[in-house]
Amino acid sequence: MTVITPFTSAGSDPAERTRLAARALRREIRAGRFAGQTAGQAPGAVQANLAILPRDWADDFLRFCQRNPKPCPVLAVGEPGDPALPALGADIDLRTDLPAYCVFRDGQLVAEVTDLREVWRDDLVGFAIGCSFSFEEALVQAGVPLWHLRQGCDVAVYRTSIPCQPAGRFSGNLIVSMRPFTPADAIRAIQVTSRFPNVHGAPVHFGDPAAIGIADIDRPDFGPRQEFAPGQVPVFWGCGVTPRAAIEQARPPFAITHKPGHMLVTDRLNAELAAF
Amino acid sequence: MTVITPFTSAGSDPAERTRLAARALRREIRAGRFAGQTAGQAPGAVQANLAILPRDWADDFLRFCQRNPKPCPVLAVGEPGDPALPALGADIDLRTDLPAYCVFRDGQLVAEVTDLREVWRDDLVGFAIGCSFSFEEALVQAGVPLWHLRQGCDVAVYRTSIPCQPAGRFSGNLIVSMRPFTPADAIRAIQVTSRFPNVHGAPVHFGDPAAIGIADIDRPDFGPRQEFAPGQVPVFWGCGVTPRAAIEQARPPFAITHKPGHMLVTDRLNAELAAF
Repeated sequence: MTVITPFTSAGSDPAERTRLAARALRREIRAGRFAGQTAGQAPGAVQANLAILPRDWADDFLRFCQRNPKPCPVLAVGEPGDPALPALGADIDLRTDLPAYCVFRDGQLVAEVTDLREVWRDDLVGFAIGCSFSFEEALVQAGVPLWHLRQGCDVAVYRTSIPCQPAGRFSGNLIVSMRPFTPADAIRAIQVTSRFPNVHGAPVHFGDPAAIGIADIDRPDFGPRQEFAPGQVPVFWGCGVTPRAAIEQARPPFAITHKPGHMLVTDRLNAELAAF
Repeated sequence: MTVITPFTSAGSDPAERTRLAARALRREIRAGRFAGQTAGQAPGAVQANLAILPRDWADDFLRFCQRNPKPCPVLAVGEPGDPALPALGADIDLRTDLPAYCVFRDGQLVAEVTDLREVWRDDLVGFAIGCSFSFEEALVQAGVPLWHLRQGCDVAVYRTSIPCQPAGRFSGNLIVSMRPFTPADAIRAIQVTSRFPNVHGAPVHFGDPAAIGIADIDRPDFGPRQEFAPGQVPVFWGCGVTPRAAIEQARPPFAITHKPGHMLVTDRLNAELAAF
């Protein structure tokens, strides 16, 4: 995997190096020279899930996120019609700065595109939603091993029987990601991820999958089966697939999300998101 | 001061006793038998600032709060036209459950009322916003002394030169509350309030008032002057007067807030709000 690094030196300031790497990656994406998954790119930079909705759906959606902060932690909301998100990076243009997008009409995926300039409208509102890459980086730095990263695969993701708090036309069940840990690592993982409420925060459940409506832990709804070492238990976090599923269920006439794995890479540092 | 306590016993469960006290107080307010300030009532229950706006202003306001979570931490948002806030209490009716309200037209305070039934409209959206009473309770429980509570007076509140992030028609400078502490108590206060991001969270500044545009610490814009013991420094938190000032500045044709000190008393426990 090629990791984009900036061409100019930022001296010895690691924060500025991270921001420069994020900007350089966005520039490559914008120019059509990078269209791959963003995992591992610009290490240290916050990567975000994207949702774009027409203005007359955006207020319901923001209320839905406010009521369901664990799966839908809002990092930034754009002004209607404006593809900028200055809170996450001065030059961000949501129409061009992600490697790939999913376009939905009436809740159905109708296209995957690498550029939104042709479909952008002056009533669209962009939402950047926190992503588990941020807390996974904190876990790795805290010495908590993540099996899927060692395997180079995705996490397992499951639909649950836990209803989200509805808001207007948006509803649906909580969707969770799952990582296997020993109890001691699970306790440490709870401590570490509690510091990051804007990127899903603390887990929502551990142990018995059936208690949250998961019939078979070995058959995730999305992503690959994870392997459990002896004594490991499953630990479940709110997942950014939840807002995408809520959009599919609400069937707005028009909506856009990032293509899974192809995130918005921002100038914010994961370390900046720590609540304490 | 009379503290409303429930007539029925909830046995030995202090959480249930707190919820019953909150419900009993709301019942008294709804019946017109309690119209005073809510400080000190239903100890342990979350009290909230209130803002009510027409639907076509509410989406801008929610974006404003999302962008300025320290002064405007949203605890709950109602559905348009619905005076309920079930997330904070099953029976809450925003039209009747606060002791007193301020009614604004075009950003001007036009009336103080004790009941909204005559002015409620089916396009109004209610917002409950976190209040410093919650973190003050946590500070007192942590043994951090609060001068103004010992004096039985309000905190001092100041306009600053720090601009909030604007959203649509809402903008304005951050307004802060100030409490004097020794450095050791200030450090402890930073730790304790960091646990409560939904009720203003950690401070925004300490020390030199001029650094945030406060000309004279002895002349607050709202509330009484606070007394400093030798060695104490001022510590500043985002304040719920900020959203009220933003509403006054935006001049929506119609808006309602709580009357200062006359809060929404909810069934949520302050202890439940702790992020870790």
